[in-house]
Amino acid sequence: MSSDEINKNEVDIVIGALNADLTPFLNTWKPFFSGFHLIIVKDPDLKEELNIPQGFDVDIYSKIDMEKTLGSSDSAMFSGYSCRYFGYLVSKKKYIVSIDDDCVPAKDPRGFLVDAVSQHVNNLERPATPLFFNTLYDPYREGADFVRGYPFSLRSGVPCAASCGLWLNLADLDAPTQALKAEQRNTSYVDAVMTVPLKAMLPISGINISFNRELIGPALVPALRIAGEGRVRWETLEDVWCGMCLKHISDHLGYGVKTGLPYVWRNERGDAVESLRKKWEGMKLMEKSVPFFESLKLPESAVTVGDCVVELAKAVKEQLGSDDPAFTQAADAMVKWVQLWSSVNSSG
Amino acid sequence: MSSDEINKNEVDIVIGALNADLTPFLNTWKPFFSGFHLIIVKDPDLKEELNIPQGFDVDIYSKIDMEKTLGSSDSAMFSGYSCRYFGYLVSKKKYIVSIDDDCVPAKDPRGFLVDAVSQHVNNLERPATPLFFNTLYDPYREGADFVRGYPFSLRSGVPCAASCGLWLNLADLDAPTQALKAEQRNTSYVDAVMTVPLKAMLPISGINISFNRELIGPALVPALRIAGEGRVRWETLEDVWCGMCLKHISDHLGYGVKTGLPYVWRNERGDAVESLRKKWEGMKLMEKSVPFFESLKLPESAVTVGDCVVELAKAVKEQLGSDDPAFTQAADAMVKWVQLWSSVNSSG
Repeated sequence: MSSDEINKNEVDIVIGALNADLTPFLNTWKPFFSGFHLIIVKDPDLKEELNIPQGFDVDIYSKIDMEKTLGSSDSAMFSGYSCRYFGYLVSKKKYIVSIDDDCVPAKDPRGFLVDAVSQHVNNLERPATPLFFNTLYDPYREGADFVRGYPFSLRSGVPCAASCGLWLNLADLDAPTQALKAEQRNTSYVDAVMTVPLKAMLPISGINISFNRELIGPALVPALRIAGEGRVRWETLEDVWCGMCLKHISDHLGYGVKTGLPYVWRNERGDAVESLRKKWEGMKLMEKSVPFFESLKLPESAVTVGDCVVELAKAVKEQLGSDDPAFTQAADAMVKWVQLWSSVNSSG
Repeated sequence: MSSDEINKNEVDIVIGALNADLTPFLNTWKPFFSGFHLIIVKDPDLKEELNIPQGFDVDIYSKIDMEKTLGSSDSAMFSGYSCRYFGYLVSKKKYIVSIDDDCVPAKDPRGFLVDAVSQHVNNLERPATPLFFNTLYDPYREGADFVRGYPFSLRSGVPCAASCGLWLNLADLDAPTQALKAEQRNTSYVDAVMTVPLKAMLPISGINISFNRELIGPALVPALRIAGEGRVRWETLEDVWCGMCLKHISDHLGYGVKTGLPYVWRNERGDAVESLRKKWEGMKLMEKSVPFFESLKLPESAVTVGDCVVELAKAVKEQLGSDDPAFTQAADAMVKWVQLWSSVNSSG
């Protein structure tokens, strides 16, 4: 499916602006962003004026909009990379595509620029297959199918909630790995999309992601922040935590999460060795999160995404709250998020 | 790791001979089979003498060997594609690599012939990661690593029990799909290996497979046969059923199963439309097998592979036996297989 076949009115491209000058970023994406509506959310801690080139259909949100919506002067929940969640909140579209502002279009092995927006929407529009793994990857892709032994009753799949794209050049490593392997770059373009099986956990990255907002919207929640979390991805955990919630809720509600294509090209930003000095707290928090999500079972009474987030928050507080104050704060943020989502989306 | 770096004494290449003339097959594989020990097992229903070219280190087994080992004149459990299981039984090596005799080496996207043997052994020697999905695929591959958010405590992985390779040209479709899409060929070379997550089910194919015989040997069991199962893959189910057992037992014992590389090139064989006329019974049996494996929980007391196969057979008989006589026969065959494995492998 090319860009021409997509209903562009159904898509919002959400960009979190951590840098004031978005000109180079937007210009490289112009062939693929053109004709789509953009939501640009300015990091509330960014002081400079945004620089946005002509020729885009764009709405810009900043600290003042956050404060108005929150009804308070505290916009910390949308600080740094989390600013994009404000875009998720105020969008009215079915699909959201979100890409970090240090990424440019990747090239596929034939040398063509990758249309990440269309590929994400393709992934979202085709069913997902979390209940049985297809060894030849996405069975709905042209030239592919279900392999022998794949149960016929499962071949219609389930709705796809989210599509997680990947990264060429700078891979999405954590601070210690990035610091230890400072020279390592990802050069491997794997031409596949697959559904991550039911109950499998994965570290979802916020760098290059899309989701069906109508289906799963409030599960994309800005909740777990590391003390001193910076403005380089390898220091963040908010997206990984959000991804654990998203995957668990998708499993519970019978939706699928895909990973693989599209790739984006990530440029360098930040100093990993500097980050390493800060000691990556994410490590400790993930060790506690994994057994929690592994044993988590949401009640059958949780039938909406909002219900699920609230139930998940309750379990976080009960089971992880005493381990680290970051978990209690995350649980509180999750409840607050559901309230916010419901008030913004019912008033609209 | 190249062929030179592999300890060839640890590997048996097992070939089930469904065709008498193995000359073209073995000659195309010579660059990669050379220096390895081969076990060739002749389909007990094949009448002609085998034709095997010079220059291979090979042991050949036929109906008479089966009857001697079984202590009876009934070699039906090793009929057709199942003949290769006799090779698994009599091998004394750590690793088994097995490839169908209608496959030749594939070419990778750079045009180089794929060394399927070395790639399989690589997969088996490196750990597997079934407990958490790594979005950048095999983290142990050169140039790869664990992505941000991957728990550090899980980065050493678990032993790899089996490696399932894929197929270019003729994909491994079932009879109805192959008949409906007679012209479709798989041209997509996906350059990735991944561990199939814990509890995920997949249709493992016997076409191009390897496993750690010491770790999981008796779980590769010739058990479920479809009435009138032929000598074309799209009519068989034995390998898919065996794969469901293998995956479940690997999960239970804490081992991983990988899928992806290596590819082989599958040549044409058989007439899918003819097969379709027979009505593919595999379809019906798979629909019953999936909920069975989904809810199956082996007892903690099952600590060896043999224990697991016997417990699995017990559950098959109890829960599926009344659905179809093929399941009762499968359960009996599984118990018999464990006895056979233990007698052959203790006497040696």
